[in-house]
Amino acid sequence: MERVPIAGVGMTKFGKQGQRTSRELFGEAAGKAFEDAGLSPDDVDEVFFGNFMGELAEQQGHSGPLAADAAGVTAPATRIESACASSGAAVRHGVNRIRNGDVDVVLVGGAERMTNLSTAEGTAGLAAAADALWEIKSGITFPGAYSLMANRYFHEHGGSREDLAEIAVKNHEHAVENELAQFQRAITVEDVVEAPTVCSPFGLYDCSPMSDGGSAALLVSEEFAEDHGLGPEVAITGTGQNGDRLALQDRVSMTRTPAAERAAEQAYEDAGIGPDDIDVAEVHDCFTIAEALALEALGLYEEGEAIHAATNGETSAGGELPVNLSGGLKAKGHPVGATGGAQISELTKILRGDHVNSDAVSDAEVGITHNAGGTVASCVVNVLEVIA
Amino acid sequence: MERVPIAGVGMTKFGKQGQRTSRELFGEAAGKAFEDAGLSPDDVDEVFFGNFMGELAEQQGHSGPLAADAAGVTAPATRIESACASSGAAVRHGVNRIRNGDVDVVLVGGAERMTNLSTAEGTAGLAAAADALWEIKSGITFPGAYSLMANRYFHEHGGSREDLAEIAVKNHEHAVENELAQFQRAITVEDVVEAPTVCSPFGLYDCSPMSDGGSAALLVSEEFAEDHGLGPEVAITGTGQNGDRLALQDRVSMTRTPAAERAAEQAYEDAGIGPDDIDVAEVHDCFTIAEALALEALGLYEEGEAIHAATNGETSAGGELPVNLSGGLKAKGHPVGATGGAQISELTKILRGDHVNSDAVSDAEVGITHNAGGTVASCVVNVLEVIA
Repeated sequence: MERVPIAGVGMTKFGKQGQRTSRELFGEAAGKAFEDAGLSPDDVDEVFFGNFMGELAEQQGHSGPLAADAAGVTAPATRIESACASSGAAVRHGVNRIRNGDVDVVLVGGAERMTNLSTAEGTAGLAAAADALWEIKSGITFPGAYSLMANRYFHEHGGSREDLAEIAVKNHEHAVENELAQFQRAITVEDVVEAPTVCSPFGLYDCSPMSDGGSAALLVSEEFAEDHGLGPEVAITGTGQNGDRLALQDRVSMTRTPAAERAAEQAYEDAGIGPDDIDVAEVHDCFTIAEALALEALGLYEEGEAIHAATNGETSAGGELPVNLSGGLKAKGHPVGATGGAQISELTKILRGDHVNSDAVSDAEVGITHNAGGTVASCVVNVLEVIA
Repeated sequence: MERVPIAGVGMTKFGKQGQRTSRELFGEAAGKAFEDAGLSPDDVDEVFFGNFMGELAEQQGHSGPLAADAAGVTAPATRIESACASSGAAVRHGVNRIRNGDVDVVLVGGAERMTNLSTAEGTAGLAAAADALWEIKSGITFPGAYSLMANRYFHEHGGSREDLAEIAVKNHEHAVENELAQFQRAITVEDVVEAPTVCSPFGLYDCSPMSDGGSAALLVSEEFAEDHGLGPEVAITGTGQNGDRLALQDRVSMTRTPAAERAAEQAYEDAGIGPDDIDVAEVHDCFTIAEALALEALGLYEEGEAIHAATNGETSAGGELPVNLSGGLKAKGHPVGATGGAQISELTKILRGDHVNSDAVSDAEVGITHNAGGTVASCVVNVLEVIA
């Protein structure tokens, strides 16, 4: 279907800034996006804002109009909550809104404030993305749920503790020069393997951190871009979303993520491309195993093979298909509601050539984002292409 | 723009059923909508689910896929949170999704579980729809905020305690025969005026209750309706949404609701009609004063005049412009996330002629819904028209 140019993007630095509210974080990200696009808040026709745990972290729901207000915008504004896929979904709904043909500029993105909570409070808050009746009641948290998936993956397909570690090492390496990333430092496989255990097989470095941050993108119609001489270099050409049973116990498989498979299929069809066309990817590596599951669901690797991708150097900056050049959730940080929008912000810059890691994929024409909620009970996939 | 037929609607009884989860409530409502439409879950291409306080009441976020699952649907599913306007917004996004042209059936609606909480917990939860930094910190709750608006309205425009009471009396009267309503009993002006004070000028009967319930509607493309011989009698022909500063203190006026005015303007323009065309309305009477504010924002009454509408009998079943024939939030109940969808469900039946109060408007061709979040910091307006 119709491609939707990305006129501008912006994100805050991700990291510990728990004294700042979500609205403030989104306001900063939106301000950067306006500057990047050369547009003003008055140009915006609609806002989709992703936020997950505002009620728990800030006593704040109803954050659509609040986010719009922080960005200086008066327009229809809706808060989208799809757990960790909240702002990926916001982006998709913004794309569809532009495609309606009656609006020209949509501000999308998200924000999350998390580090004002204790780790226990934050972990309990995140658990609201799982099935309260079955999973939360049995005491499972997300490190636990994903470790079940990792162990089952090992059982079915092989792969090693070190293979997981290589994913974290790669993503930390990518973040070293990225000033917006939470962790700008390299780590070794030894660091990962010897780190304190969170939930076997995961140690501390297999888990994305608690983070605060905001992200934003300005989506425009092609007509508007042309009329205003914006010259956007990248557009969203395909978008997909799908869901699954919320509880891991209700799934057909512990090692496949059909919500992501269906979202990817939809996005590829929408863009008129296939997995072979992808040059670069930003995927939802909330835990190391999640990156492998994502690459398989996107059809970039066969089932059971993505676990070796980082070990083989295929997904690093120098590899055939660089994955998470931003540092991913692991090293860039994971302020839940901002993550999907941040993938768009970073991938847009990577494709435009103005990201610190753009050189790793200087000929890249097509990129993909994969943003998952819960144990991939929801997933949004967006395809981005260079158009200028 | 393109009209979007309503193939089927359904809602649970509203009231105290706090032992039931939101997912269960939505599943029941969706089941009724499928039966009403003659469609099955497999027909659904996308889901928009409104829910406000799931995190606080049920430890449950990420409820889009959960709601889809409860309805038996595997499809993209997004939870929309816009405080008390959550499912009104879900309906609007569903309408826009159909208008994209690439999907044919969208399930919209919402659910809320509230009465499992104590009144204090519920009131604190509802306060998350206000500005946490300014309003919640200063101790204001929604009865307090709306009472400020009511007192200012009296100061600017006149109107009396009894005029407010007449609004509650009318809506209770409308609910007497409505088996889905929480309060099926008539009250008198004396009952309202002599009820315990909640926050002056409001007594107990000026306030909508805590309720549990679910609502659903199946929106379809005209093509799909025709191809499947559905023969829907009512369609959404116009939709609008807008926002405002969240905190009452930041508004231009305490007695006007510009978010609703802008949403109405957008919906009227979209439908190609004006206020004079409206035969019947379902508006957001979370407190008695809110009904008057709604009627003025919709352009159905001049500023300062809607306060007398119920007193004059103009908005009752026998009046010129019946308002809240369902019983409204006041008497039908107000399970927050379900309310906007319930307005669609009830108004569709009223217009089709199969609602217990349809006889009051037997010639009605055009209806309007007004669903507000917070102190109308967000508002969604939908126009429904008889098409067969």
